[in-house]
Amino acid sequence: MTPLGHAAVLGAGSWGTAFAKVLADAGTDVTIWARRESVAEAIRSTGVNPDYLPGVRLSDRVTATADAGKAIAGAGLVVLAVPSQTLRGNLAEWAGFLDADATLVSLMKGIELGTTKRMSEVIVESARVAPDRVVVVSGPNLAPEIAVGQPAATVVACTDVERATLVQNAVTTPYFRPYTNDDVIGAELGGAVKNVIALAYGIATAMGLGDNTRAMLITRGLAETARLGVALGADPLTFAGLAGMGDLVATCSSPLSRNRTFGEHLGRGETLEEAQAATRQTAEGVKSCLAIRDLARAHGVEMPITEQVERVCHEGVDPRTAVTALMSRTTKPE
Amino acid sequence: MTPLGHAAVLGAGSWGTAFAKVLADAGTDVTIWARRESVAEAIRSTGVNPDYLPGVRLSDRVTATADAGKAIAGAGLVVLAVPSQTLRGNLAEWAGFLDADATLVSLMKGIELGTTKRMSEVIVESARVAPDRVVVVSGPNLAPEIAVGQPAATVVACTDVERATLVQNAVTTPYFRPYTNDDVIGAELGGAVKNVIALAYGIATAMGLGDNTRAMLITRGLAETARLGVALGADPLTFAGLAGMGDLVATCSSPLSRNRTFGEHLGRGETLEEAQAATRQTAEGVKSCLAIRDLARAHGVEMPITEQVERVCHEGVDPRTAVTALMSRTTKPE
Repeated sequence: MTPLGHAAVLGAGSWGTAFAKVLADAGTDVTIWARRESVAEAIRSTGVNPDYLPGVRLSDRVTATADAGKAIAGAGLVVLAVPSQTLRGNLAEWAGFLDADATLVSLMKGIELGTTKRMSEVIVESARVAPDRVVVVSGPNLAPEIAVGQPAATVVACTDVERATLVQNAVTTPYFRPYTNDDVIGAELGGAVKNVIALAYGIATAMGLGDNTRAMLITRGLAETARLGVALGADPLTFAGLAGMGDLVATCSSPLSRNRTFGEHLGRGETLEEAQAATRQTAEGVKSCLAIRDLARAHGVEMPITEQVERVCHEGVDPRTAVTALMSRTTKPE
Repeated sequence: MTPLGHAAVLGAGSWGTAFAKVLADAGTDVTIWARRESVAEAIRSTGVNPDYLPGVRLSDRVTATADAGKAIAGAGLVVLAVPSQTLRGNLAEWAGFLDADATLVSLMKGIELGTTKRMSEVIVESARVAPDRVVVVSGPNLAPEIAVGQPAATVVACTDVERATLVQNAVTTPYFRPYTNDDVIGAELGGAVKNVIALAYGIATAMGLGDNTRAMLITRGLAETARLGVALGADPLTFAGLAGMGDLVATCSSPLSRNRTFGEHLGRGETLEEAQAATRQTAEGVKSCLAIRDLARAHGVEMPITEQVERVCHEGVDPRTAVTALMSRTTKPE
C-alpha cells in the first residue's frame, strides 16, 4: 500500500471543511473541491469557508478549487463529502481521475434511494474500486465543534485494517481521536439511521415530551438500528460504540443538528414543505427514512420508529398520532 | 405465589412518592412511610407531598404514615425507596414486620460503602429473604416527569420471571410501561454507575465541552459500566436497554438530575464542600464512585471515568487535569 500523500476533500460543506482542517492540523496537505468557484476562491484567498464554516481559519496546508480533476490528481487520500443522493453521479465523472491505489474515505450518512445501498457500496460500484479501498468515518462529530478544537472521537472503519490504521494516523490530532474498526456496515448504518431517530427526537421535543420519553426514544431507536444492522451482517457491538450510540446521542442532544431541528418544525405541526421552507433545506433523514424503511422490510426487520417517521414525513400523518402509535405497543420483555 | 394485595412504599422522596402514584393509578392501594410525621400528615390531609413532589395530587388510594410497622403489615408489595447507605439499618428494624411471601421492590440506585454490595444483596442479607423475592425497578425515570404523566418506560428485573410479571402488571399505566428482565445485576449496576457518569457529564458541561465530547463521555461511560457488569455476571445486552443506556441518557440530559447538577458545581471549580453547601445535599454518585471504584479494582476492571470522578470528588484533583487525563489515553481499536 502506498503512503497516503496529499489529500483531496470533495465537498465544501461544514463536515467536509472541518475534516480538511483535521487532516491539515495532523500534517497533511489538502485540496478542497467546492462545487461553486466563489466558495473555492474564498477559501483560497481568506482561509475561511464563509458559507459553511464561518469564523474558522483553516491552516495554510489547505487550498481549494472548483476543478475536481485537479483536486483528485495525485491524491493518495480522497475524501467524499457530497450529498448522499448525488454521490453516484459525481463519482461517475470523477472515477477516471483517481490514482490506482488511492484510499477513498466516506463522510456521508445516507442510504441511496431506489437502490437502498450504503454509501460505501455506491462508491465501490460507481468508482469501480475494491471494497477494501473504502474507509468510512463515523461518530459523534458535529462539525462546528470539531472546527473549534473541542475534543471528539470517531470510528475509522475498513475491511482492510492496515488501511484503516493509515487513515487513523492521518487524522489524529490532540482534539480528534479516531478508533479503528473493521465493521463498515455497522458504522454506516449507525450514521444513517441516527438521522431518522433525530427527526423523531425533534418531533418529541417540540411536542413537549420530557427527558424520560426522549431517552426511551433514543434507546429503542438504537435497538431498531442494531436489529437492521445485524440482519445486514454488522457486528452488534458497533452500535454500542461511538458510531452507534455516540453519534445518536450527540445528534439528538445538539441544537446544531439539522435533523433534530427539522423534526422540531414537524412536531410543531408544520408540513414537510413548510419545514423545508423554514430551514431552507431537506434534512438527510427525511430522504433516508424511505430507503431505510424499504431495507428493513426487505429483510423482515421491525423498525417502528422509522416507520412512524416515514409516515409523518411522507404520508401526512399527524405527529401526535405517530407518538401514540409508538407508545401503545404491547408491553413485553425487553 | 400470593397476589400482591396492597402496597407499602418506604421512603417519601420524589421517586418513592411518584412510584406510589403509579401504583395507585394502576389500581393498587398504597401506604407511604415517611420518616417525618409532618410529611406523612401533609400527604394524608392534602394528598400532596409538599417537600418532594409539590403540586402533584396523589390518588385517593394513597395514604401515609410515619409508622413503618403499620405501613408494612399485610402488604404483599413492599417498595424500598430509602437512601442507599441507610437501607441496611432500616431493614434490620423492619424485617420482622414483613409478610412471609411479600415481594420486595428496590428503587434504589447505589452501592453500599465498605461492603461494595448492590442494594438487592443488602436486602437479601438484611431482611433475610430469598433472592427471588427481590425485584429491581430501574430505567429512565426522572420522578418529576412521571409524576405529571409524561410517557416513560422502565425495567422490572427479578430472577423469578413470574414475580417480575406480577410487579409489571401492578405498575402498568397508560403513561408508564414496564419491561420485564431477569438480569438483576445488570439493572442495578446500570442505575448505580450512571450517577457517577452523570457527575462527569456535569463537570464537562460546566467546563464548556460540547455535545461531541459529552456524547463520547456517555458512550465510554456505558462501556465501562458494561465491563464491570459482565465481570459481575450481568448480561451485556442489559446495558444497551432502558436500565443501561436509557437511564444514563435521561440522567445526563436532564437539568433535573441531581448528579449532573452536582457535577456542574464541581466543574465550575467548587470544592466538594462548596458544592454540597450550594445544593444542600450530596449526590448519590459522590458516595457510589468510591464503592464502584473498589468493586472494579477487586475484579480487575478498568473504569477510567469512574477513577477520575473519584479523584475529583475525594482527592481534590482539578477537573481540568482529570479531563486531560481521560482525553490523552492511547488511541486504539474501539
